[in-house]
Formats: sequence, structure tokens, C-alpha cells
Amino acid sequence: MSHQTASHPKDEGCPLRVNGTRLMETLHFTCEYGKAYPWGAHETETGMARLALNDDDKRVRHWLIEQAEALGCKVTVDQMGNMFVIRPGKDNTIPPVMMGSHLDTQPTGGRYDGILGVIAGLEVLRTFHDHDYQTEGPVGLVNWTNEEGARFPMVTVSSAVWAGEIPLETAWNCKEVTPTAGQEPQTLKQELERIGFLGEVPASYTAQPMAAHFEIHIEQGPILEDGGLKVGVVTGAQAYNWYEIEVKGRDSHAGTTPLSARRDALLAAAKMIVESNKAAKEFSGLVTTGIIRAEPGSVNTMAHTVRFTLDARHPSDEQLAKMVSRCREVFEKVAKEDSERGVEVKWTTLTENVAVQFDKDCIAAIEESADEVCARFEEAVGGRKLWTHLTSGAGHDSCNASKRCPSAMIFAVTREGMSHTPDEYCSPRDCIISADVLLGAVVRYDKARGKSNL
Amino acid sequence: MSHQTASHPKDEGCPLRVNGTRLMETLHFTCEYGKAYPWGAHETETGMARLALNDDDKRVRHWLIEQAEALGCKVTVDQMGNMFVIRPGKDNTIPPVMMGSHLDTQPTGGRYDGILGVIAGLEVLRTFHDHDYQTEGPVGLVNWTNEEGARFPMVTVSSAVWAGEIPLETAWNCKEVTPTAGQEPQTLKQELERIGFLGEVPASYTAQPMAAHFEIHIEQGPILEDGGLKVGVVTGAQAYNWYEIEVKGRDSHAGTTPLSARRDALLAAAKMIVESNKAAKEFSGLVTTGIIRAEPGSVNTMAHTVRFTLDARHPSDEQLAKMVSRCREVFEKVAKEDSERGVEVKWTTLTENVAVQFDKDCIAAIEESADEVCARFEEAVGGRKLWTHLTSGAGHDSCNASKRCPSAMIFAVTREGMSHTPDEYCSPRDCIISADVLLGAVVRYDKARGKSNL
Repeated sequence: MSHQTASHPKDEGCPLRVNGTRLMETLHFTCEYGKAYPWGAHETETGMARLALNDDDKRVRHWLIEQAEALGCKVTVDQMGNMFVIRPGKDNTIPPVMMGSHLDTQPTGGRYDGILGVIAGLEVLRTFHDHDYQTEGPVGLVNWTNEEGARFPMVTVSSAVWAGEIPLETAWNCKEVTPTAGQEPQTLKQELERIGFLGEVPASYTAQPMAAHFEIHIEQGPILEDGGLKVGVVTGAQAYNWYEIEVKGRDSHAGTTPLSARRDALLAAAKMIVESNKAAKEFSGLVTTGIIRAEPGSVNTMAHTVRFTLDARHPSDEQLAKMVSRCREVFEKVAKEDSERGVEVKWTTLTENVAVQFDKDCIAAIEESADEVCARFEEAVGGRKLWTHLTSGAGHDSCNASKRCPSAMIFAVTREGMSHTPDEYCSPRDCIISADVLLGAVVRYDKARGKSNL
Repeated sequence: MSHQTASHPKDEGCPLRVNGTRLMETLHFTCEYGKAYPWGAHETETGMARLALNDDDKRVRHWLIEQAEALGCKVTVDQMGNMFVIRPGKDNTIPPVMMGSHLDTQPTGGRYDGILGVIAGLEVLRTFHDHDYQTEGPVGLVNWTNEEGARFPMVTVSSAVWAGEIPLETAWNCKEVTPTAGQEPQTLKQELERIGFLGEVPASYTAQPMAAHFEIHIEQGPILEDGGLKVGVVTGAQAYNWYEIEVKGRDSHAGTTPLSARRDALLAAAKMIVESNKAAKEFSGLVTTGIIRAEPGSVNTMAHTVRFTLDARHPSDEQLAKMVSRCREVFEKVAKEDSERGVEVKWTTLTENVAVQFDKDCIAAIEESADEVCARFEEAVGGRKLWTHLTSGAGHDSCNASKRCPSAMIFAVTREGMSHTPDEYCSPRDCIISADVLLGAVVRYDKARGKSNL
């Protein structure tokens, strides 16, 4: 295999398989905590509204502790409410190989985003337990707090604190976006305290080190499904920047202001959005505007101010910078030369994230596992290879983890590429395949550290 | 003069001039009722917030009754609260020649829009009174209720009821947009009752006929100022249609959805707005989008639904229809051919208004008056003509009035074309010029009916 390095022994295969029925039953059982928005006739055909640290999140966390303890695992909760479930191995002086994702959801979310990653990790631990399988070092599962950033508006905030990327106090003071009616907005720390998940262990890679971090996540895009593929071996994550663009013109009457006398902020913003899409095509990147607001907002009055967001992504940091520069250039041109009497344009950077390159040994372990798992299905498709390398378009806790330990991700097929919506769907077969790939990757990575310098 | 018809005698000139100082003092005095938003050092440098039928509107209405009665005029209030102030003439069996506009303002309005038209009308009546000037028939002033449609969301609603264009009950039941905190939204009728201006006389051109309707209004556009002109003789009003356009695509993740797999409603809407501007240029009309809303409204999620408004105007009904057809055509093309996996577009008509052509005799009376008044200033500019014909871009009460009696309008210079904003401004000189043009037009029109078949 091209990605196999000299330190890897010949792949010996994984002797275990997950219990697929139990995986799916467990996943749907936990979705009783926070289920919402039925979209089909079956009782599992609903979405989820399990916002971080709400009462349903508290319930599913208590449930997870029970399950972990039933397997003889130790549970540690850190200052960010991150839950580390550790199953001992032969040598417990070395850090654990971890599997992790998140149990919180979007307000109108689905049953697979994050949840599949945690429940599949639990299923791997249960499979080890069923077979009394002894790993070289400890192996575990982590549930990261508030990954979505939907309730407390900082995405992947708790893995970022663990990685030392965001100060603890900043994260603790983050206030909820939508307070309960009649209440002050609560901080993340207040809610951790309220549900009893404000741990004492520092949220830090030094206090809670990991030997590696593996994460299953639904792809949230259409590439696997469109290509008739089963597994994505994720080699890294795109760089992405978020901006708010403010366009200022002048509000004047739609009926009495000749086109030539206008400073129409909304027309200029529309031109900029169209131009940003051209820049994305030119650089083979992605640019998206999801939010736009025009003031004062009257049918017969031009907008004096328009604010819109720009989400710009590229697998290459350098190409992202070039694509954004092109946008700045063309927006300025629209403002000065193509807006009649001119508008002003101002950029505010909301977030900038460099591209992430996952660890080659973690990737190799996933590739070997994917080879083995997919082989079961490839005969039926004439030997066509059923996994592919992918770059993650979205940010994940693994991106933070990768800054402090070897990491990589496994993507599962997502129906029509849809996520963050109640009818987000990953078929039972696809869930099980991804869990088997995770199991095989962890077994391989763990075994290698018993034999090499990993 | 090209517009003079055979029925007009040679222009004999107007023997009177308004009292400019009194006009401006009165205008600013009445703006004490509802003044708001200071923008300059002088006490008159503020905007207005005199929403229809609020307590300030009640106060200025009582003030107007006092002033009218002091001039020996009769005041009639109709079922819409429209106030008709009538000064008797030689023959009181014929209907009055009226001057009219409105005393209500936008919530963040200025001191001239509407107000100038009413106060100038009062100044004309005062000038007649000063000189004991006898008109052929009665002459009067009308204050139309809720012209702005800002509090009760139907513009020029009360002149429309008068003209038989809108049923009385529909207008009466119109609810206020922004209720007082803790109160149910009030209807227009409830507020007429509350402030004591629910009259018993039917709001109708049959119960309250008018021989003609003249209206001064600020231009609300930049043409007079940009051309160094003093007066606009308004020959009609543009046709205008309002639409809401709904674009439906699919919400998907900004980081994980390739450009080619997108159904991005906001990108498609931006393209449509840009195309609508091209159509406006092609047909020499006006198209404006003032409102846009995108759902769900998240930085990293494409919008599934975007709604935006389209305000389309043209002096010609036929050209307006062609321009709108072009928009429908190009929007459909964007939806089907230029939105990757396609979006759907749906049009809803909010209002359609045909072009208005004002009365040739009213226009001629204003032209003759403008000739005379502007002559005083033309020498200073090398004999350059200081008035021009204009088409009104906005709707006015005169558009409704014109359906039931000869009507025309006079436009006054508007600083930088700005209106519906606190610093809306028309200089004292320009206010006085327009009032003198109004005076001269009314004197001419009234005199002609003593001699002709008008």
C-alpha cells in the first residue's frame, strides 16, 4: 500500500467485527433523548433537537456513564464537560488510543452527525468487551462538548480548549444564543454546573493526553453517494475563513431616483455575491453566502446598508488566500466602478482556519481497515474499490485533536449529502461499515504501538 | 406656449405673491407637533415622527381647523378623517378648486414631504384673505389622512376611498403596523374615533366633489437639483408594480457541498437582482430590490429559501409590462440554466398601478405660473429656463384625485434627492417659489372657469 511506511508490519487483518444490530439499536435508543421533527412513518424517522448541555444532553451523558461503567471503563469529565471513557489495556502507563465525536446536535439536526461517531466508538469498546480483547495500551471514547456551536456560538470549542487553542475562561464565558423565555442568557460554565458536568480535571492535552484520535463522521456531502462508494478515508480538512462584508450606499426612493443617481447597497451586494461564485470556480474552491440583511428594508426604498457573510474554503491555504484576494479585488471594483455613484465595502474577519493534514499512520490504519471491510462488498460490484480519500469540507473536533496527537477521520455515506436537517440519513449498512472500519483502524494502530515506536 | 389650448385666454399674470416668511414660520411651527431626530444645530434642523392619527397628528389637525376658521373658511371632516377647508368664492354652487397633500409623516420622516403641500395651500388661502381676493368659485385645501401608509399599511388610502378605488370598510379595518407596547393593534377607524376625526360626511367624490386638485410636493429625487432647476411641472405619474419573488433551493453545508451539487437559493437570487437591473437599463425604467430575506440564515449553510421584493416602474404601462416580462424570462433562465442543480422561482404580485396622466388644463395653469415665477430668477442665470416637465416616480394623493377631477402637481427641489429621512430638506427659497407657482396656478385655473367651460 502506498501509504504504508517502513514502520508498519504487513497487515494482519482485524479478527473482530462490530455487532451491527446493537450499534443501530443503541444509536436510535439514545436519540429518544431529544428527538424532534418526525419526517417519516417509522419511529426512528425523526430529527433531533439536543442542544449542548440541555436536559436531554444531560440524560444521554448519564446514560453513557452507565454504559461505560458496565464495560469496566473509567469515565473522566474535564472542566469543559468533555467525557473521556477509558478501557484499560496491557500497558496502562501509555496514553489511550481514542475514538471520539459529539452527542450535541443542531436545533433542527439529525440522528447521525456526531452521534454516529460516539455510538460507534462505544460499539467498538463493547466488541472488545464481548471478546475480552486485550489491547496493547488503553483504548477509549471521548464525547466533546458543544461541537456544533449551535447553542453556545463557538464551534468545536471544547476540543479547542483541550488542544490549548482557546483559553478556558473564554469558552466558559460563551453565552447561549437563544435564552429560555424570561431568563438571562446562560454561560457555558453555568450550564455545565447546572447539569452537573463541570469536572475538575483540566481540559488539556497535558492532563488528559491521547495516543491518537479517530473519528467517524457522516460525510455531509454527496461525493460518496454520487460515486457509489462506501467509505471516505479523510486525509485532512480544508482551510476555511469566514467574513462579514458590509456594503454602505444611500437609501433613496425607488420611484424618484434615476438609476444613474443611485448608491444601491443591495444591488452592489448582489453583484459581489455573483462575483464571489466566479472566484470560487476559478480557484476550484468553495464560496458561500448564507446570511444577508438589508436595511432599512422597505419595498420602495433602496437599502443604505447590506451585510452578508462569506464562507470561503480550499484544501490549500495558499489557494484560499488567493481566492479571497480575488474576492477583495472584484468587490472593490464593483463598489467603485459598477455601482453608479459608488458604495463602500468593508470586510470583517470572523474566523480563519488553516488547512489540517491528518497523521499518515492514522490514515494508513484506516486505509488498511477500509481495504479489508470494503473487500466484503467489492465482489458484488465487479471488484470496484469502494473507499476513497477525501478532504473534509467542514471543521471537526479531529482538526483540534490533530494539533496535539495523531488523528484521522472516517466518512460515512450521507443521503443526498444532507446534514443539519431532521431527515439527515446514513443507512444501517453504511453505519455498520464505518464502525467496522473504525474498529479495524483502532486494532491496527494499537497493535502497531506494541511493536513499533509509535 | 405649446401646452396652451384654444380655450385659454392670453396669460394675464397673477397679481398676488405669498408671504414667504409666514409660510416658513408656519411650516416650522407645525413641525413642533411631532418633531424628532435633530440633525443640525438650528432648532428647525430636525426630522419628524408624526404618524397618522397619533396625538401629534390630532394636535396639528386642531391647529389647522383654528387657522381655517380664522380665515372664514368652512372645515368638513369626512369618514376617513380627510379635512376639507373651503373658502367661498363668487359662485358657491360650483365645486371648489382644491390644493392638497398630507400632514402625516414616516416614522423617521422629514419636514417637507406632504407638510409643504398643506402649509403652502394654507398660505395661498391666507394670501387671498390678506388681499380680500375674490375667486370665481370656492377654493380650498385638503389634508388627506395616512398618505404615507407608514402607520396603517395602505399608501394614499384616504384619497383612494374618496375616489371610490378602495371600499371604506377595507380602509377602516386596516390595522396599525406597530402597536403600542402591551396593546392590541388598533384599526384606522378606532384611531379616527379616538382622536375625534371620524366625520359623518361620506369619503367620496360625490359627497365632496372637487373642481380640480393641485398639489405641491418635494421631488424626492435629484433631477431638479442636478439640473440647477427650481420647479417641476408634473405631467403624470409612472406606472409601478410591486412583486415578491420566492426562490427555493436546498440548504446544504457550505464546506461539504461541491459547487456543482448546489441548489443555492441566495446565489440564484443575487443573479436575478443583477439581471433585473440590466432589464431596467434596457427598457429605460426603474427596478429596485429593497427587501431580501434568506432562510435558515447560517454562515455555513446555503439558504433553502430566499424572498426578495421587486419594485418596477415606467412612465409607460406597455414598457413596464415588457420590462417585467423580461425579468420573468431571465429569472426563469437563472433558475433553470444558471443555478447548478436548479432552483424554483415563484412570483407574487403585491400591487399593480397603471400610469397616471394629469389634466392638460391643470398642467397649463402650472406652466404659465411657473413661467411667471421663474422669470424673476432667470435673468441671474442668463435667461436659462428654470422649470421643467417631470413625471412623478412616486404615488401621490393627486394620482387618486386625478381619477375624479382634473389634477396636476408641482415639484419642489429636494436636497440630494433625499426624502423619508430626518434631514430631508427644501430651502426656504424653493418652498416659497413652489408656493408662488401654486398660487398662480390656482388663480389662473379659477379665473379661467369664470370665462370658459372648465
